[in-house]
Amino acid sequence: MSETLTVDLADRSYPIVIGRSLLDGGFDLGPYIRGNDCLVVSNETVAPLYFDKLLPGLGNRSVEHIDLPDGESFKTVATMQSILDKLVESRANRDVALVALGGGVVGDITGFAAACYMRGVDFIQVPTTLLAQVDSSVGGKTGVNHARGKNLIGAFHQPQLVLIDTDTLTTLPERELAAGLAEVIKYGAICDAEFFAWLETNMAGLLAMDADLIGHAIRRSCELKAEVVAEDERESGRRAILNFGHTFGHAIEHCQGYGEWLHGEAVAAGMIMAARLSGLPDEDVARLSDLVAAAGLPTEPPAIAAEDWLSAMGMDKKVQGKQLRFVLLDAIGASRVSSAYDDTLLNEILRR
Amino acid sequence: MSETLTVDLADRSYPIVIGRSLLDGGFDLGPYIRGNDCLVVSNETVAPLYFDKLLPGLGNRSVEHIDLPDGESFKTVATMQSILDKLVESRANRDVALVALGGGVVGDITGFAAACYMRGVDFIQVPTTLLAQVDSSVGGKTGVNHARGKNLIGAFHQPQLVLIDTDTLTTLPERELAAGLAEVIKYGAICDAEFFAWLETNMAGLLAMDADLIGHAIRRSCELKAEVVAEDERESGRRAILNFGHTFGHAIEHCQGYGEWLHGEAVAAGMIMAARLSGLPDEDVARLSDLVAAAGLPTEPPAIAAEDWLSAMGMDKKVQGKQLRFVLLDAIGASRVSSAYDDTLLNEILRR
Repeated sequence: MSETLTVDLADRSYPIVIGRSLLDGGFDLGPYIRGNDCLVVSNETVAPLYFDKLLPGLGNRSVEHIDLPDGESFKTVATMQSILDKLVESRANRDVALVALGGGVVGDITGFAAACYMRGVDFIQVPTTLLAQVDSSVGGKTGVNHARGKNLIGAFHQPQLVLIDTDTLTTLPERELAAGLAEVIKYGAICDAEFFAWLETNMAGLLAMDADLIGHAIRRSCELKAEVVAEDERESGRRAILNFGHTFGHAIEHCQGYGEWLHGEAVAAGMIMAARLSGLPDEDVARLSDLVAAAGLPTEPPAIAAEDWLSAMGMDKKVQGKQLRFVLLDAIGASRVSSAYDDTLLNEILRR
Repeated sequence: MSETLTVDLADRSYPIVIGRSLLDGGFDLGPYIRGNDCLVVSNETVAPLYFDKLLPGLGNRSVEHIDLPDGESFKTVATMQSILDKLVESRANRDVALVALGGGVVGDITGFAAACYMRGVDFIQVPTTLLAQVDSSVGGKTGVNHARGKNLIGAFHQPQLVLIDTDTLTTLPERELAAGLAEVIKYGAICDAEFFAWLETNMAGLLAMDADLIGHAIRRSCELKAEVVAEDERESGRRAILNFGHTFGHAIEHCQGYGEWLHGEAVAAGMIMAARLSGLPDEDVARLSDLVAAAGLPTEPPAIAAEDWLSAMGMDKKVQGKQLRFVLLDAIGASRVSSAYDDTLLNEILRR
């Protein structure tokens, strides 16, 4: 049983296939691979669990395999280059397809390597964390971190297919499940009040991994993301709303050192800061904060000096003309990108 | 006095401005720069000659400057990263424009850095060598070399403007002028018999740097390249004819070590090898060989063992399904991309 959504981008359109037992069922990746060569990129944690299950879907193609070290701190140019070295070593040509099997870090690095090898080869996303399934695997943002800021180096490069087997979540640590729910909550907050309310009703079931509820949350998140991406592939406008909570969140990750706080945890606390900066009525901030807390996510950032906040946020990609820009909420379910924020309020929030 | 061609790529279209005294005349780059920040990327040879001349054209923008080490052997990911570091250090945002002032190496690395910084920022090509003016600055191919092969890592990323001041050629070493003429000859050979004949008539004047003749050669080369690129931006088909002589040429560069033979020299010898492989009548091979010789370029490759040739060519981006592909001539001025070549003849050519 699977369902297919489409990311509608003219000649770069691709399907998102969502379902259970897709890997166990030997889902055929063949139609999405042009040539005879694949390189599966995974990591030392995920590969032992799912590499063997993925193999039948690759048919009798020639399959190379590389495992990256696990963790955000390895999301670097150097790790990306280890993939390129592997491709060169195996004399992969332009027909090669990279398959990213893992979470957001594996997907982002693999996609960037696919964007750069021979100026662009195909790749397939097989996300195995909730965060990657609802967010990072969809939309073609690829990249690595720079010592001075997150995702500063990368490319827009759309995959040929996103294959989401929700059964992979059964092996996901609880903390990472919660981190993924932060991005799910984000979609409700920025553009779907009804979905937000649904999450308020069903958070306990989601945390208990009820398969139907999880399936719905993933499907709706992917639908919302696909809509926004189809409208603004390269983030020249509206797509930036997907960064709700991320300006603060990236600063948290940067100041704490990548890997200390999970991306989703930083985004969770960041969303509440952004909601406060939006001047949203207290009861709406409280709804967001309660939902974040119900997901087991942090509602407050760690202790960071105000000047460190500002310095870290100055490196954010959404800055234009050195003026900070934030995604602000007009209400639960409605958002805008703006640099018209209350400076005093920002300072108050940073100094809380 | 300048002339403007257009590379016609829908929303990625851009002008090529060709003329004399463009830098001395303070050509205004302003209309091609979105924000207030520029980073001029040059090298230690070109910057002392032209950086100061370029500055007035940038108006009162904030201008950063970085010089790369000079030479093909520095066309690496590490050099590219020094540009990214400079951008991060100066807190450049998405509005920044990179300006590549120099030859093909500077342009290729700068373009790739522009493609990767924050997933893509603007850049401007100001090519100062003949090779860069007639070939590498036009068409959006950017990238760096891998230890195992040329241009294996890169991106398609179109500039906002190509500014060709032909006066910069007055400071170009004779050897590099000749190397640039190799690519000029290439255009005649692959798609313009009349231009080829014009080159036969005017080679002496070109080598004597007659400004009108040089101007015509650059303009016609850019026109031909712009046409091919507009038809097939990402080299899924016809654009590959621009690689005439390059399969052999890249192998020469690779086997000799980058920098020993100039790119244009390797392509020159490579074109004659490719013409032989095409089964072209002897008199046509002789015409090509004579024109290459008249330009002061090598007509024969260096001594390379046949197995080293094949191994180096196996890394060529035009390989499909492990079968070598070559650009072959049907006649002077007509070419095709093909993997239907005479294997015995290839071996004979490699063992000459």
